[in-house]
Amino acid sequence: MNASHPDRSRSMETLHASRAVIRQRLSALRSALQQQQLAAFVVPSSDPHLSEYLPQRWQGREWLSGFTGSVGTLIVMAEFAGLWVDGRYWAQAEAELAGTGITLMKIPSGNSMQHVDWLAQTVSAGHSVGVDGAVLGLAAARMLTLALQARGVTLRTDLDLLDTIWSDRPGLPLAPVYEHLPPHATTRRADKLATLRTAMQAAGANRHFISTLDDIGYLFNLRGADVNYNPIFVAHALIGMEQATLFVTAGKVSEGVVDALAADGVVVAPYAEAAAALAALPADAVLLLDPRRITFGLREAVPASVRVVEAINPTTFAKSRKNDAEAAHVRAAMEQDGAALCEFFAWLEQALGNETVTELTIDQKITAARARRANFVCPSFGTIAGFNANGAMPHYHATPEAHATIEGDGLLLIDSGGQYLGGTTDITRVVPIGQPSAAQKRDFTLVLKGMMALSATQFPRGVKSPMLDAIARAPIWAAGIDYAHGTGHGVGYFMNVHEGPQVIAASAMPEPHTAMEPGMITSVEPGIYRPGKWGVRIENLVLNVPSMTTEFGEYLRFETLTLCPIDTRCLDRDLLRADELAWLNDYHATVQKRLAPLVDGAARAWLLERTQAI
Amino acid sequence: MNASHPDRSRSMETLHASRAVIRQRLSALRSALQQQQLAAFVVPSSDPHLSEYLPQRWQGREWLSGFTGSVGTLIVMAEFAGLWVDGRYWAQAEAELAGTGITLMKIPSGNSMQHVDWLAQTVSAGHSVGVDGAVLGLAAARMLTLALQARGVTLRTDLDLLDTIWSDRPGLPLAPVYEHLPPHATTRRADKLATLRTAMQAAGANRHFISTLDDIGYLFNLRGADVNYNPIFVAHALIGMEQATLFVTAGKVSEGVVDALAADGVVVAPYAEAAAALAALPADAVLLLDPRRITFGLREAVPASVRVVEAINPTTFAKSRKNDAEAAHVRAAMEQDGAALCEFFAWLEQALGNETVTELTIDQKITAARARRANFVCPSFGTIAGFNANGAMPHYHATPEAHATIEGDGLLLIDSGGQYLGGTTDITRVVPIGQPSAAQKRDFTLVLKGMMALSATQFPRGVKSPMLDAIARAPIWAAGIDYAHGTGHGVGYFMNVHEGPQVIAASAMPEPHTAMEPGMITSVEPGIYRPGKWGVRIENLVLNVPSMTTEFGEYLRFETLTLCPIDTRCLDRDLLRADELAWLNDYHATVQKRLAPLVDGAARAWLLERTQAI
Repeated sequence: MNASHPDRSRSMETLHASRAVIRQRLSALRSALQQQQLAAFVVPSSDPHLSEYLPQRWQGREWLSGFTGSVGTLIVMAEFAGLWVDGRYWAQAEAELAGTGITLMKIPSGNSMQHVDWLAQTVSAGHSVGVDGAVLGLAAARMLTLALQARGVTLRTDLDLLDTIWSDRPGLPLAPVYEHLPPHATTRRADKLATLRTAMQAAGANRHFISTLDDIGYLFNLRGADVNYNPIFVAHALIGMEQATLFVTAGKVSEGVVDALAADGVVVAPYAEAAAALAALPADAVLLLDPRRITFGLREAVPASVRVVEAINPTTFAKSRKNDAEAAHVRAAMEQDGAALCEFFAWLEQALGNETVTELTIDQKITAARARRANFVCPSFGTIAGFNANGAMPHYHATPEAHATIEGDGLLLIDSGGQYLGGTTDITRVVPIGQPSAAQKRDFTLVLKGMMALSATQFPRGVKSPMLDAIARAPIWAAGIDYAHGTGHGVGYFMNVHEGPQVIAASAMPEPHTAMEPGMITSVEPGIYRPGKWGVRIENLVLNVPSMTTEFGEYLRFETLTLCPIDTRCLDRDLLRADELAWLNDYHATVQKRLAPLVDGAARAWLLERTQAI
Repeated sequence: MNASHPDRSRSMETLHASRAVIRQRLSALRSALQQQQLAAFVVPSSDPHLSEYLPQRWQGREWLSGFTGSVGTLIVMAEFAGLWVDGRYWAQAEAELAGTGITLMKIPSGNSMQHVDWLAQTVSAGHSVGVDGAVLGLAAARMLTLALQARGVTLRTDLDLLDTIWSDRPGLPLAPVYEHLPPHATTRRADKLATLRTAMQAAGANRHFISTLDDIGYLFNLRGADVNYNPIFVAHALIGMEQATLFVTAGKVSEGVVDALAADGVVVAPYAEAAAALAALPADAVLLLDPRRITFGLREAVPASVRVVEAINPTTFAKSRKNDAEAAHVRAAMEQDGAALCEFFAWLEQALGNETVTELTIDQKITAARARRANFVCPSFGTIAGFNANGAMPHYHATPEAHATIEGDGLLLIDSGGQYLGGTTDITRVVPIGQPSAAQKRDFTLVLKGMMALSATQFPRGVKSPMLDAIARAPIWAAGIDYAHGTGHGVGYFMNVHEGPQVIAASAMPEPHTAMEPGMITSVEPGIYRPGKWGVRIENLVLNVPSMTTEFGEYLRFETLTLCPIDTRCLDRDLLRADELAWLNDYHATVQKRLAPLVDGAARAWLLERTQAI
């Protein structure tokens, strides 16, 4: 699943909100604007944890605008309302905003702060702009403040205007929190806390505040289900040198878990008390926090007397470097995942022509196949099954109202993944339906060349991950083709399917924290998209493993973790070099060897057929 | 010549300054410190134009410390003096600082501001630090101010303490300024000014101030000789919408040139009046300037009432995109340069064994061969001729006191270039002396593979140049080897051999201004360095040329400009793929065809021999 095109669970109520309802909501917000004497109110797509997937409570931008895409900023003024979105969402936004009175403001990809300049130029000096500081990232708030101050405009961040007009606003999510247990949890909570405290000390800090839900789940060996796909729960955490406090809604943590936490010096406190705990920090506190991973509201709660050390959360590095036991569990999860895919693809091949297969059927069948596998918890994101033209939209999702039936000739792209107690999977394969064309085979082969080129790369430990991006693109560029998303994203361990700090993307800055280290898991997923025609993306997850140590230092290579045939019926063999053919045949030999013991019948026959050397 | 290892002309007086003299100078500075009540004085390696090559007048850091490397920051306090330098210079600095009382402060490469943190931690609140704002870059000054302010330390930038103690300080350079004339100057000065004014208007500005000497030389079609190698002259320029002022030391510009400038609305004013002209800007002036290319002192001269628009100098983009006429002149210059190299290498091969050849002889002979060629002006940098172990030092320069004789077996690395009226060249070749070893051949072949991989890359117009770096490294990484410098630097047109905005280096941020555009000239120069043994670097200059336009946009490819055989006697043929062999044979066919008409006798025989297909 490519990181540039995250999808989020959609709140059904919004999907069905009529244009008239949207206009009513905007009108109510405008009344609130007037009451507060604000010239404009900004509604970002974010929550108090700066998460990728937002609980419904914080899907206010969607509730207010009707736009269901995952990224976009809404600005409402007395006489104007505009939604700033990038190219991925222009078509969707145009359709969803029609009739709402909201203007679509198109921005270039990667320029997510363009609305800031617009605001600075549009709002007159002496006026005020409002935004809910509780869901505004600190970096975004700093940029907004600077731009508005320079023009004599005041920013108010103490207002959650949505709350005043959203009468049936969903509450905080209430799914139970549970322990991630051994053997899949390979490091004890107490040991993780000790490691974190060592890192805090090294940074000169004696307190650390965490808002990011993957860091919290990792640190405490806890998981939840507050959003779809990512096994996280909504919480904040304050870590001291002796004790730690987990701020989480009452009732979500059972007594048993509370006791287990207490045994490790972790106290559970009400979710709403996090800001107060920051405000109550003593003057000798030195607080480590990540300015990119905290909201403006919480940052403001810290007393001026407390010294703040800004750095990336140490847990972000720790959890990105999977240890040997975790890597072993991931390999086992990949075998289960690959076996499930064999069963799915065997079913698909016999079903085509015998029964009606749609993009929706594929989602159901692939999830059902995974659900039969050991330690499966849930999908790791919404399955993307796109036939021909639908495959050309990297963030396409079939819906009951709009989906394709798999029939005729072409390419079927399936991007799916699972959460297992022992790891998170994410895989994209493209299979031929009927007879693929020569042009389709060429695109498939070029994408495969890109994927193999990067997968086979050896690189120095510590190389900045964004710098690897061009290696996957070069074989595709050679044909005058490019893809508008990153090449790879970090992946969690039974955690978020998009998890840094590493990322293989030309749009990312090669900053020190993106350094490649042993144990990191990353996707490799180049693609080619022909709008209105077809799309190809081939994706494996790869693990950074030590390769050699020379006088020039340590070198890493990628161990391909994902186990599933790459359909050679789509290949244009003439485009492959000898070393590329060898890579592909080696990969298929490994897939066959590792998966054959786990499947039988039609699935086994399919595996043997699709892993034949060419 | 690789951009990470610039070399500068050395002032002979410093080279010969004894340790005792250095200690006297430091002592004089300390007296001045005390008089001014400063806790510390910072001496950066920079001048009022933030140039790479500093006129002697601004080589104060070298004069004061005895350290002759090109990059380093000296900090002097009452009881301490330290020089902050990166890994390239540790050995050299250790030798040169011995006995001076100056401590070598080792910093990691790319962290050129580490002394700022040190100062902030060392100087007590309430004290003052001094630095000459006239030679301090604005960005560096902002960082220094922020860091010191946070600790209650004051920064004074109005002091040129060196001037008070450096009694025989060299004056401003006085080499005559001359016109760069047609046909080599392909665009009239008036047209360049008109283009610049259009860019100023687009940025909302009506004034533009330029301190960078390559921008000034380009804009006015003027050249000079105020430093070695780069044909620039020391000046500032203030461009209005109707008129422009060139601030340059009286007497350097002849009456004829003054008249020619006046015809295009350019007035010549004394060099020292630049700051006053900025201070006198009217309140309705909107001043475009590049914050990375102006000193703190000049930025401070701008009245607060003047609105400043910060952007890269438009001339930096304009001069980087060579037009067709310029590209044609560069191709002709490359032919002359290649022919000179044929003559040099033919001489070298017959001389070895018959006469004593040293690294210094090579410099003399290669420059003499170029000097016989049409339109040659001067070398474009100090020749690097390094035999075996000396070739392993990327910034090595042979001196009369220390240089190797070319004898026995091994590899000879020669990095050299010329300034021609129609272009700037920069080429590195490695040739075998006696019998190269298998290990040497392997390194040579790996470097060549990296160079060919990048040279053969097609890429989207607008790609950020730093992202291409990994393509050259991948074949070298595959062997567990890396090189500690960038892969390529932009090159000027009869101008600086290091000229942006594009740069192919993992250490550079892929910011928008680094986008690859047609007409840019860049070096491709991967390397392998075995300390104490040998070094390999192979460098060509390449031109961005349109390649194809597809539904995915415009694509560019590299046209290799440099014409000189790559010595196939150093090849390990087994390491080359068929497509790589084809590239090399194609290149040699081109070199032979283009150079054969320009050489005869031994040079022609050498060319035919060394360009045979393999």
